[in-house]
Amino acid sequence: MMAQKPTQLHFVKHLRQVSGHIDRENAVLIYDRILEKKFPAFVKSWSRRYPVRSGEQLKAMENFPKHAQKILALCEGLPTKKITIVSMGGGSVGDFSGFVASVLKRGVSLVHIPSTWLSAVDSAHGGKTALNVGRLKNQYGTFWPAQKTFLVKELLLSQPAARVIDARGEVVKIALINGGSLFSKLNSYNQSLDAELLWKHLRELIVAKLKVVRRDPLETRGVRYILNLGHTLGHVLELQQGLSHGLAVAHGLRWSIAYSQKKAFLKTPNKILSQNLLRLNLPDERNFHQQIKGLRNVGKVLAQDKKMSGRHKLKFVFVSKPGRCTVAEVSIKDLVHSLEQERQQ
Amino acid sequence: MMAQKPTQLHFVKHLRQVSGHIDRENAVLIYDRILEKKFPAFVKSWSRRYPVRSGEQLKAMENFPKHAQKILALCEGLPTKKITIVSMGGGSVGDFSGFVASVLKRGVSLVHIPSTWLSAVDSAHGGKTALNVGRLKNQYGTFWPAQKTFLVKELLLSQPAARVIDARGEVVKIALINGGSLFSKLNSYNQSLDAELLWKHLRELIVAKLKVVRRDPLETRGVRYILNLGHTLGHVLELQQGLSHGLAVAHGLRWSIAYSQKKAFLKTPNKILSQNLLRLNLPDERNFHQQIKGLRNVGKVLAQDKKMSGRHKLKFVFVSKPGRCTVAEVSIKDLVHSLEQERQQ
Repeated sequence: MMAQKPTQLHFVKHLRQVSGHIDRENAVLIYDRILEKKFPAFVKSWSRRYPVRSGEQLKAMENFPKHAQKILALCEGLPTKKITIVSMGGGSVGDFSGFVASVLKRGVSLVHIPSTWLSAVDSAHGGKTALNVGRLKNQYGTFWPAQKTFLVKELLLSQPAARVIDARGEVVKIALINGGSLFSKLNSYNQSLDAELLWKHLRELIVAKLKVVRRDPLETRGVRYILNLGHTLGHVLELQQGLSHGLAVAHGLRWSIAYSQKKAFLKTPNKILSQNLLRLNLPDERNFHQQIKGLRNVGKVLAQDKKMSGRHKLKFVFVSKPGRCTVAEVSIKDLVHSLEQERQQ
Repeated sequence: MMAQKPTQLHFVKHLRQVSGHIDRENAVLIYDRILEKKFPAFVKSWSRRYPVRSGEQLKAMENFPKHAQKILALCEGLPTKKITIVSMGGGSVGDFSGFVASVLKRGVSLVHIPSTWLSAVDSAHGGKTALNVGRLKNQYGTFWPAQKTFLVKELLLSQPAARVIDARGEVVKIALINGGSLFSKLNSYNQSLDAELLWKHLRELIVAKLKVVRRDPLETRGVRYILNLGHTLGHVLELQQGLSHGLAVAHGLRWSIAYSQKKAFLKTPNKILSQNLLRLNLPDERNFHQQIKGLRNVGKVLAQDKKMSGRHKLKFVFVSKPGRCTVAEVSIKDLVHSLEQERQQ
């Protein structure tokens, strides 16, 4: 529980520009250890810092006590009300650090410095934090928005170009949800999204997500739920096929569009699917079929999903057209059946 | 982070009256296992229930993953948005269950059924939840008020009469903070507080605490801080002497009054200390001296306290008169020195 102020977004070229905006005396930097080699001066400039290995294991509940104890020790001597947790890393680091900030001393300030395109576009925004329990993802967590989020060009561009792929699914998702000029602009490019285009449109993409979040910050009104577009099948693929979150969502998005057509939410599927943005940035049909062929027990996995609305039903986000999504209840049986038909094609 | 509605207080005679107010289909009862013997029918009427052993060990961070996993398993098949955690027990059970509710699936509903006088008067109200890290108490936690809190006469009266003592410190504290008719009424009794008097004044005592909490629910404005009256030395005694929280606070309150006199916040100490409420419900001088004689390294323990305002200072709650407290910064050195003088008397 926290008084809610909108997160300040700062777009800067260099990491060193971040420092002036933070009360570093009372801050603890939690950071992906791989960044220490790339940005040694920045990392070492923090007297209180905690390196972590990124990935889902960082979010494992069973490891949390060990982290909690060490991070608490780093805060010794700091006035409670002034502590700030600064998170520098990708999605797993942000989810973990955000959770720490939300429960340390009953909640301290949080700053995000996302280091991957996926986190810069999506996970650093909107305040969700999470831990996993065994193989079940994000079962514990909080809503804890950052006071400030820094989008740092040199940090994001330091990623291998290939990692841009991870962000494409979420970018297409938010453009599809938002519609309007954001969708048209991204749809006008006759190429897949690259780092340059992502940086150019980063603010619009973030603002489009925050527009949804602000109408429903705690996901209590159903509005925010549309951000799960593509995530139902996406989570299954992530879990069973070991796909990255970004790629899994891209596949999930492709399937959501097909399922929307089948259930008659989307009337003009070919027109939509042939658009530049979708055609160039979502996995192609062959890729998609390869992935879903490997799936087993989809119904059982879905039944453990947090998004269940009852024992055998879940809420699914359908696409009607760019700028318009519809949430409807579907039976797991129907969903699995449709997926089965797709596999046999 | 949670939309904040005032907690509904329900005063009922029997446990069975609670059931009608809760969506039991979607609830998990977390309860002190000792209550199963006293109230078997009520406990066994919950299909999803989790017995715990009360005490500080329940709040140990290192044990949390194990609990978190088991409680998650109990929620299998429940629609996320409808889950309610129902906590039945004393302070440690409430602190633990409240924390669970605040982080399970990013936060679910919470109902408190305090079973001890101390929790009924104090800890079940105001939304603080907490876990301990090693010997350091309440280092992690959240603000997560219950939607409903049930004060159940048969449950509270089932406690051994001697346990009323545990509540006296907090009762005197809140009466002293509130002043007014609550203080006068309790001060008019020429006896120590017993179960009957506590039940009679329970609503007024809770409302007096909530009056402070509502002005500063997240402890960000300094107002709520006055509820720490008596807790600075109280926490040291609890930690080093193994006193119960209630008794430790009672001793701490006695010392806070003496220290308020010494620092000239309180001008009429003898008059205040000779009042019925304080004289009959706080430990006497001999008792108090016995306790503080055993203390060691008080400065070091205080330096680890969450309430530190700087490296060598802390905020102390002084009493000016019933109904009026003053928060002021004191150096740990001065506080330890004053305590030392007291010990040598």
